[in-house]
Formats: sequence, C-alpha cells, structure tokens
Amino acid sequence: MAIRLATTNDRDAIWAILEPMLRRGETYSLPREMTREQALDFWFASGHETFVCEADTKAGVILGTYFLRANQSGGGAHVANCGYVTAHGAEGQGIARAMCLHSLARAKERGFRAMQFNFVVSTNERAVKLWLSLGFEVVGRLPGAFEHPGRGFVDAVVMYRALL
Amino acid sequence: MAIRLATTNDRDAIWAILEPMLRRGETYSLPREMTREQALDFWFASGHETFVCEADTKAGVILGTYFLRANQSGGGAHVANCGYVTAHGAEGQGIARAMCLHSLARAKERGFRAMQFNFVVSTNERAVKLWLSLGFEVVGRLPGAFEHPGRGFVDAVVMYRALL
Repeated sequence: MAIRLATTNDRDAIWAILEPMLRRGETYSLPREMTREQALDFWFASGHETFVCEADTKAGVILGTYFLRANQSGGGAHVANCGYVTAHGAEGQGIARAMCLHSLARAKERGFRAMQFNFVVSTNERAVKLWLSLGFEVVGRLPGAFEHPGRGFVDAVVMYRALL
Repeated sequence: MAIRLATTNDRDAIWAILEPMLRRGETYSLPREMTREQALDFWFASGHETFVCEADTKAGVILGTYFLRANQSGGGAHVANCGYVTAHGAEGQGIARAMCLHSLARAKERGFRAMQFNFVVSTNERAVKLWLSLGFEVVGRLPGAFEHPGRGFVDAVVMYRALL
C-alpha cells in the first residue's frame, strides 16, 4: 500500500470510508447523522493535513484515510493529533498500523514533540491494542464519556506518545 | 456578585479580561497573539453558552467570564466542558469558584452527565486546587503538553467530574 496526501478527487472515496464509521457510531464522538458535506468539511478542515492509503495492486482503491493536526494551539501546538479510519471490510490488513507509522514520521518531520489521542473509545479494543503496540501509553481515563449505541456509557481513554 | 448570560454589549468587558490572559500565555493553549475578533469569536462560538460575572456593588463591572459547551459531539455529547477567566486583579475573591458552581448547576440543568476539563496547565496550581475542591478529579496527565513562557514544557492535566 502507499500513503499520499489526499486531494479533492479523493472526496468520494473518503466519504465511502467515513460514512459507515459515522453511521455505526461506535468509535468516534461525531454525530451519527453527519452529512457528507459536514464530514468532509471536518476531515479536510483548515489545519488538517489529510492523507489516504491506497492499495498497491489496484490504483485508485482507497483503503484508509487519516488527518494530522496540532492538538491545541498556543502553548500546546507542539503536540500532534490524528484521526484514522480504515475502510469497512479492509480491517486486519495492517492499514491502520501503516497510517499511524506514517503519521508518526510526518509529525516528527513537522517538528511535533508528541502525539495525543484525546478520545479512544475503550471498547475499540483493536485500536487501543494497536496504539499501545506503537508506543502510545494510556495517560488518562474518562469514565463513561462515550455513549456506545450497543453498550451504553463506556469509558474513553487518552493516549500519548513522545516523538523525540 | 451575579452571573448572567453575556450579550454583545459585554464584548469590550470580556476582551478586557481575555486579553491579559492571552498575552501572558500561561493558562490556556490559545495563541498569545490572538486578536480581539479571534478571541471573541472563540468565546462566543456557536455551541458556546457564554456568561459573565458582574459585581453586585458596581453594576456593569465584569469580574469574570466563562463558556459552557458540549466537550464532544455524537456519543460524547453528554459531557460538558467550560473555560473560565477571572479579571486580572480580581483573583482571590471567589469569582472562579462562583462561576464553576454556576456552570455545574447549568450543565446539570441542561442534562449533561459529567464535566471535563481537557487541558488544565499543571503550573496553574490555584486552578487545579479549586477544581479539586469542587469535586473534580485528575483523570489524566499529559507529559510536557504545555510550553509555558517562563517555565518551559510542563504537564497539563485532564479533570473530570460526574454530575449525577
């Protein structure tokens, strides 16, 4: 697979990835009813550097997408934040891992000193395990902070990794 | 003192409170160089309910201001978030405490189940102590996440309080 900057030509492919994630409502604290325009405006927001992960074998097939941004401004602008989504049905192929590794390298290149995930839903065990394997630590636990559509109020965790 | 919803007539008074806080750059992860318009746009952002704390004795004298919002959307929309600022020179009179108590009541009234502060700079000891005294707990610690203008990279903490 190859990871490259997203362009406006990728909007359809990115929406095809974001929509099922939003509608399931199990992993991101975003409105489940978000429209295509709202979702793409957020994904391509000012200050977001947006990437796609393309299959090697089939050019034009987008398997995942992520954004990189500063998590805070002012005195907090040296800490990066990312959001990653793998295409539904493409899980288990290392796409999220590849995107995270890419984002860590890109964040270092841009001079960020650390990366923080503000809100990892604790029931998203695959993600928590993956971030732990990539050097992130759980530095905070938000009790009942996420209302999971199937499991009710569950914890979210804050994860952090130095880049230096 | 009396706490009431802010109006556009309060913009000058609010800016007079925000400006020294921004320029010092010691407590909020906002750009120190933020302009009046940027700061007021943020303070009165869509989704923020903005309040001022007025002196009883001198009508029209604003001693503090705060906003209340949902900290996340979607499955995280039941957790509130606030930002409070006391006028420079009016510290130590219980204004932040009064604003926080007001915000906790207002958040309950609006049906929020918890309140979260995402980024309390650890060197802001007065604030950390005050939030602890009002039932908040430190649920996370972000190592070196804030670049303090005088003290370099210092930790920020995540604080959380159930409202039920």
